[in-house]
Amino acid sequence: MLAEIKGINEECGVFGIWGHEKAAEITYYGLHALQHRGQDGAGVVASDGKQLKLHKGLGLVNDVFKNAKFDELQGRAAIGHVRYATQGDGGYDNVQPLVFRSQKGSLALAHNGNIMNGYKLRGKLEQEGSILQTTSDTEVLAHLIKRSISDDYEEAVMEALRQLVGAYAFIILKEDTMYLATDPRGLRPLSIGRLGDSYVASSESCSFDLIGATLEREVEPGELVIINNDGIRSRTFQEKEARTMCAMEYVYLSRPDSNINRVNVHASRKKMGVELAKEAKVDADVVTGVPDSSISAAIGYAEETGLPYEMGIIKNRYVGRTFIQPSQELREQGVKMKLSPVRGIVEGKRVVMIDDSIVRGTTSRRIVRMLKEAGAKEVHVRIASPSLQHPCYYGIDMSTRDELIAANNTLDEIAEIIGADSLAYLSEEGLERAIIREDLPNQGICKACFTGKYPVKEKGQTEIEYTRM
Amino acid sequence: MLAEIKGINEECGVFGIWGHEKAAEITYYGLHALQHRGQDGAGVVASDGKQLKLHKGLGLVNDVFKNAKFDELQGRAAIGHVRYATQGDGGYDNVQPLVFRSQKGSLALAHNGNIMNGYKLRGKLEQEGSILQTTSDTEVLAHLIKRSISDDYEEAVMEALRQLVGAYAFIILKEDTMYLATDPRGLRPLSIGRLGDSYVASSESCSFDLIGATLEREVEPGELVIINNDGIRSRTFQEKEARTMCAMEYVYLSRPDSNINRVNVHASRKKMGVELAKEAKVDADVVTGVPDSSISAAIGYAEETGLPYEMGIIKNRYVGRTFIQPSQELREQGVKMKLSPVRGIVEGKRVVMIDDSIVRGTTSRRIVRMLKEAGAKEVHVRIASPSLQHPCYYGIDMSTRDELIAANNTLDEIAEIIGADSLAYLSEEGLERAIIREDLPNQGICKACFTGKYPVKEKGQTEIEYTRM
Amino acid sequence: MLAEIKGINEECGVFGIWGHEKAAEITYYGLHALQHRGQDGAGVVASDGKQLKLHKGLGLVNDVFKNAKFDELQGRAAIGHVRYATQGDGGYDNVQPLVFRSQKGSLALAHNGNIMNGYKLRGKLEQEGSILQTTSDTEVLAHLIKRSISDDYEEAVMEALRQLVGAYAFIILKEDTMYLATDPRGLRPLSIGRLGDSYVASSESCSFDLIGATLEREVEPGELVIINNDGIRSRTFQEKEARTMCAMEYVYLSRPDSNINRVNVHASRKKMGVELAKEAKVDADVVTGVPDSSISAAIGYAEETGLPYEMGIIKNRYVGRTFIQPSQELREQGVKMKLSPVRGIVEGKRVVMIDDSIVRGTTSRRIVRMLKEAGAKEVHVRIASPSLQHPCYYGIDMSTRDELIAANNTLDEIAEIIGADSLAYLSEEGLERAIIREDLPNQGICKACFTGKYPVKEKGQTEIEYTRM
Amino acid sequence: MLAEIKGINEECGVFGIWGHEKAAEITYYGLHALQHRGQDGAGVVASDGKQLKLHKGLGLVNDVFKNAKFDELQGRAAIGHVRYATQGDGGYDNVQPLVFRSQKGSLALAHNGNIMNGYKLRGKLEQEGSILQTTSDTEVLAHLIKRSISDDYEEAVMEALRQLVGAYAFIILKEDTMYLATDPRGLRPLSIGRLGDSYVASSESCSFDLIGATLEREVEPGELVIINNDGIRSRTFQEKEARTMCAMEYVYLSRPDSNINRVNVHASRKKMGVELAKEAKVDADVVTGVPDSSISAAIGYAEETGLPYEMGIIKNRYVGRTFIQPSQELREQGVKMKLSPVRGIVEGKRVVMIDDSIVRGTTSRRIVRMLKEAGAKEVHVRIASPSLQHPCYYGIDMSTRDELIAANNTLDEIAEIIGADSLAYLSEEGLERAIIREDLPNQGICKACFTGKYPVKEKGQTEIEYTRM
Repeated sequence: MLAEIKGINEECGVFGIWGHEKAAEITYYGLHALQHRGQDGAGVVASDGKQLKLHKGLGLVNDVFKNAKFDELQGRAAIGHVRYATQGDGGYDNVQPLVFRSQKGSLALAHNGNIMNGYKLRGKLEQEGSILQTTSDTEVLAHLIKRSISDDYEEAVMEALRQLVGAYAFIILKEDTMYLATDPRGLRPLSIGRLGDSYVASSESCSFDLIGATLEREVEPGELVIINNDGIRSRTFQEKEARTMCAMEYVYLSRPDSNINRVNVHASRKKMGVELAKEAKVDADVVTGVPDSSISAAIGYAEETGLPYEMGIIKNRYVGRTFIQPSQELREQGVKMKLSPVRGIVEGKRVVMIDDSIVRGTTSRRIVRMLKEAGAKEVHVRIASPSLQHPCYYGIDMSTRDELIAANNTLDEIAEIIGADSLAYLSEEGLERAIIREDLPNQGICKACFTGKYPVKEKGQTEIEYTRM
Repeated sequence: MLAEIKGINEECGVFGIWGHEKAAEITYYGLHALQHRGQDGAGVVASDGKQLKLHKGLGLVNDVFKNAKFDELQGRAAIGHVRYATQGDGGYDNVQPLVFRSQKGSLALAHNGNIMNGYKLRGKLEQEGSILQTTSDTEVLAHLIKRSISDDYEEAVMEALRQLVGAYAFIILKEDTMYLATDPRGLRPLSIGRLGDSYVASSESCSFDLIGATLEREVEPGELVIINNDGIRSRTFQEKEARTMCAMEYVYLSRPDSNINRVNVHASRKKMGVELAKEAKVDADVVTGVPDSSISAAIGYAEETGLPYEMGIIKNRYVGRTFIQPSQELREQGVKMKLSPVRGIVEGKRVVMIDDSIVRGTTSRRIVRMLKEAGAKEVHVRIASPSLQHPCYYGIDMSTRDELIAANNTLDEIAEIIGADSLAYLSEEGLERAIIREDLPNQGICKACFTGKYPVKEKGQTEIEYTRM
Repeated sequence: MLAEIKGINEECGVFGIWGHEKAAEITYYGLHALQHRGQDGAGVVASDGKQLKLHKGLGLVNDVFKNAKFDELQGRAAIGHVRYATQGDGGYDNVQPLVFRSQKGSLALAHNGNIMNGYKLRGKLEQEGSILQTTSDTEVLAHLIKRSISDDYEEAVMEALRQLVGAYAFIILKEDTMYLATDPRGLRPLSIGRLGDSYVASSESCSFDLIGATLEREVEPGELVIINNDGIRSRTFQEKEARTMCAMEYVYLSRPDSNINRVNVHASRKKMGVELAKEAKVDADVVTGVPDSSISAAIGYAEETGLPYEMGIIKNRYVGRTFIQPSQELREQGVKMKLSPVRGIVEGKRVVMIDDSIVRGTTSRRIVRMLKEAGAKEVHVRIASPSLQHPCYYGIDMSTRDELIAANNTLDEIAEIIGADSLAYLSEEGLERAIIREDLPNQGICKACFTGKYPVKEKGQTEIEYTRM
Repeated sequence: MLAEIKGINEECGVFGIWGHEKAAEITYYGLHALQHRGQDGAGVVASDGKQLKLHKGLGLVNDVFKNAKFDELQGRAAIGHVRYATQGDGGYDNVQPLVFRSQKGSLALAHNGNIMNGYKLRGKLEQEGSILQTTSDTEVLAHLIKRSISDDYEEAVMEALRQLVGAYAFIILKEDTMYLATDPRGLRPLSIGRLGDSYVASSESCSFDLIGATLEREVEPGELVIINNDGIRSRTFQEKEARTMCAMEYVYLSRPDSNINRVNVHASRKKMGVELAKEAKVDADVVTGVPDSSISAAIGYAEETGLPYEMGIIKNRYVGRTFIQPSQELREQGVKMKLSPVRGIVEGKRVVMIDDSIVRGTTSRRIVRMLKEAGAKEVHVRIASPSLQHPCYYGIDMSTRDELIAANNTLDEIAEIIGADSLAYLSEEGLERAIIREDLPNQGICKACFTGKYPVKEKGQTEIEYTRM
């Protein structure tokens, strides 16, 4: 289904490169492959060894860099960020990378995730006389590093990271060093690759394919990777716990061509479709997926069941940001926006409609109705993941529990609400079978949004605060 | 394959509506579904019965209408156009609909196709004292109508149309009437639909799905359809010849969800894949299609052969107009633009790569190399249409004959040039089997670009002139 | 007083150059000096001897050319235009120069003035089968030239000009020739100058100072000047009548640094002030002028009376197009827009306020009130021209007769309406003494807006049509 | 002379209002009257009593606020700033007002002047663990306030101000209070006015005339003015020293309609012209001033000598930011930019050219040459202030001493360099006579740029640092 109309959204993507003549330009290309992770802002910081230069702005990568002068972003190291902005913190100041300058040198940070104790840390810093410029938790890390009593910068970074509770992947750039870090559970992905003699890092490996780099490995939970002109080193800033990679990265967020924690996303989605077919077959004529993210699962479902896969729903690619939304009146008369049914395919047919998830149910209801109005005889909805019942505190901007349809309704009620002739979700076990490869180590996933069992909590926390990067 | 990187491009799409409160807005939405037919300019003309109001501009529909005031485009009738501009005629003045005003009333025209005797007619008009404002052949029709000696407007339009030689679909709007017309061979598509009490017309029926209208029928070759407040009428302005609908509409140009001359495009493409599989099987591991237009054929090929269909190539959706092209140096280092290989899918595999056509061969070579660099063991290229050997004079902006790789090389030579382990094209018969439905009347297709047999020629013509709309 | 707030506005300025390497750039600079004559659109057409290239747009010269590529406007000849747009004809199409292309060559026109029989000529052309693209009378001339039966282009231009009735200054550019022409009364100004070996032409000689050229002479009434690589020639297309140069060019429209028909504008304005002082002295403390156009007259008035000239009113230079107008509420609270009083100057003083004219009286009332609120004890208004009582049909966009305060009120009534302690206008004789230099030939002025005696009329005309360029 | 072409530039203007329904809008209008003090950035911060809302941007006030939503800047208090940016600190972040937010409340600052110990204070703050976000000294004050140990906010502000060495006028806004402060010498101006029940403050009183407010008084040296819902109060944060108001405010920087320290600027300039005439008469035909700032002095000079004042030089008003500079080649051919000579005035005349100052001499040389090329027989340059020989450390961006022509050449040498037939400067005594009114208290001026005697120095300072706001 489409991120924009669904209500689940990934927060941000990060990219970095060390040791390339055209570091800023490579970062610009790398960010393109992460554009789906955040479309509200983008930025690149380059280091020429002496100082950091920043270019950032609101909007898509192309918009932000349309007038950028790359010759003013010189240097052999660069980091970049694409931003997904939540209501109220969409301003320019919060666009990352954030850069902090001082008479002793500068510091840039790019972050994906959520710091659960961000508000508390911020209050403490202010009481001690600091002024914070953004509403972003990312800035908190910069202040913690700055205020560290350690003379050793690496120690200061590790000491600061240890104070954070939450889910995060950080790329930090100083004039002479790049740092990579993920939280002790490894909830958010961060990959390391090679491009000739250069080191690259990215939220998703699809960046590497686009720039011609090769994936080497994941940053491990609790690991701090240090890259500079002396090469690459690894330290452990916090005792590593069992990896619980966010399951939604596979279900919905990442690009199908990425490998997340060594597992190809398209392949895992196709297996979700296969598992779903095993669990919830139905007598029908055609299988169709809701573009773009459910196509892989739909193909898997079709292959397993032997039903033909067809393009029953089409996405209108040119419905962009400046698209003028149809009025309520025109919508009621049938004017579509992002998705159209293909009457020639679905008319008179029993359709299996594969989607990756259901959040509030409004969009599912709209698509089912659309298919029926285009002549589908039956619409059987099959969801390639378990039902979403709990909010995410680790950086995914989902609806609150009140809004999650599956938190408040039975399966039959949901089917009725969305108008489906039948409905089935993939089981938790099916999901794990689809994602986890027994032949690889360290393959745990976070299923908190399905189960409510949260792997990371702050001690003594009464209410979980929620600020997103 | 991608229109933008290939060198075949459709010229323009047209849309019209009569009898709707929100005619201009509906036209705006209808044009979105035609955006793939032209991305260089767009315009809408509305009639409130007394005068015509125009809004047009360079760029995508969204760009052009981002600041449009629809309350200044009032009226119950409107026509619209999306423009594909060829080198040298990309200016604002040529963006359609063209509007011609006089003290007796106004006239707006939207056109898809190519008038082969446009240059000759234009010279004749100028000699008679007329001043033409654009370099567009569409304007010629307006002058021919204006100079007609007939007092009856309908007769004047028909007399003017009879002077044209070429391939065309016209929508014409006066204050009180809308006219639809296609050439006597019906080379360019134009469909009629209903939206409640309103009549709609579009180059492709996908517009109708998007706005909630239903497809009624095609405009017939040599037919003039007249729509006004008295209803809809049909006249024949020129003796109808056998329909020869442009085959490339099915192969590549139209959206998969459109019905062209009653045949669903996705279905015909899937059949092209099936026919291709029957004609040119190969021992391989996976089938992949070049996005977006070859996906349907690839699925057909996979279904027929039993090989798994996979996403071996991915399109970078956010590489838009303002994208900064990578330098030659970065491209050589492996920075991709529109398409990336999915290493996780193709590594170590024998890949069947389905594409819809090969023009110059440069892009095919690039994709084959990309797949091999991503680890594909073998790449077998299968083209879901016959080999392109002749230029099009009917409105498709293809390379000249000199540039068409198949016009100058044998099959083996082409395979070697593009680096494929094997290569096969669909046969002409296979193409006809995939498109033509024996159960429907009037299903002929124009195959001139494959065969060199041109259905429409001007008498005594020594050299075929070529100006595009 | 300020053009923008007054309601009198000049229509357009024209510029041309022949024989300079950087013709388009020089034209760009030349247009800057004419910017006060039209701020709604601007354009430049250059000829490289083979074809004409156009760049034009809506807005100020700087806005229009901000992204212009002058290397695409190559050639040794160019003409330009700044446009003042009246209500309803402000569109891009009407921005000049207008360019008309044909298979035999192209034609560009730039025009300042008003063609009184434009509507009639247009109707005639349309009846004969022509299509006109703009609502501009300028286009009529192009069609008349095109339809001329003469084989000789020069004759065709002269034959076409003879059909026009009105006030005009034209610059016409073909690939190989530039033409200059003014109407048989010479109502609108057009000067010829030299810049090295090049010929230049402009509505006002201030253009010449800015580009370093020297003023040679005026185009004479009814004269056609032909400039090409063979040099400069002069023909008479219509019997010359007595020159009646528009008096408002001196009073208000032209820049003070221009010479219009050999008379310096600032000098004539200062003399208007001197004459006004002779006719209408008053016992007062300071003399102040309404910026910018009344400063010269105010200095003349001060010099003649011996009263000190002071800056009692100041113009807020940065109140431009994007200025957000204060709400009615804020205006009532005293928020000013373009003009502010200088309290330190006028407080407790008897002020003579010099203005160049009064149209509706609303602005005069506002300024008088502003001065009094800033503490002026008395405000004596002295107008440096006779009272405006009749509309202009020759290209000045004045209010209609109904709106002209002096057409409907006595002197005392006007004084009361505007709140002045006394009011006087310059006499017609005083105006002529200030402008006309007895030592120069051909110095007549058009005073129709003061007297109602119109020097140019169409025969048998019952109602004077009014379309502006 | 023109600020933009001269090399002297005022740094910034500040405005504030307390107690008005439309505080942000009034501030917008007030900033228009200060636009000449800074054209690189502008901003407004409004307080609704609970929080501060900011709108700022790069460019002119009109550009920045063209798309501002004033209904998002609600509240009865607001402050604003126009910024003059020096090389290298022109970024968005440095645009003021600066806003600092914390969990305890927010703080906004607008500043005009220069903090001489800014770099040192910044280093100290960083060593203590603070992160500063801008390169602006203004931010230093915010950190000093934040780090104050005093619990009382007013005391904290005063304690912070006492640490600053330099020339400054600050307006500070908290949710519930507005503060005004100037340095203990009162080098930079700051006026207080009344608008109905509201209090207003501005760098120049011309803001008050524009919004309809009345000037009440100046903020005194070393005074902190506190304005909130309880009314207005005054405290002395530092022992007041003798006032030394910047002389250049009168000579050149302020608008003629402003009163600076109770003296009208136009009046003082006219007196400079009168004094100059007394000191340096010359036998000539006309007096002309370099627009805009030298017009007042020229009129004074003309009145005193009895020579006629004429407009011998004209400013091209439409030469704005997007103006395309003429190439060296075109400039040599005579293409002018901002200023043009009026040939009709100066030809054959002996001209007295009044200017307010000479910095490097390049512009003076250009204007003298321009006048001579336009036919002036003699050009006698008279400067309405003493010769500039020393840099300013108090916020005026002048050339360095090396570049100041008068620091390195005798009077005769300068005359020769600029090509003047004679040259004279106003004496220091003449300047004081023109500015200082014996009937008013506290009228001292800073003449350091003429004399090198600096009224404010940091103790033990070896090198004077120079950072501008």
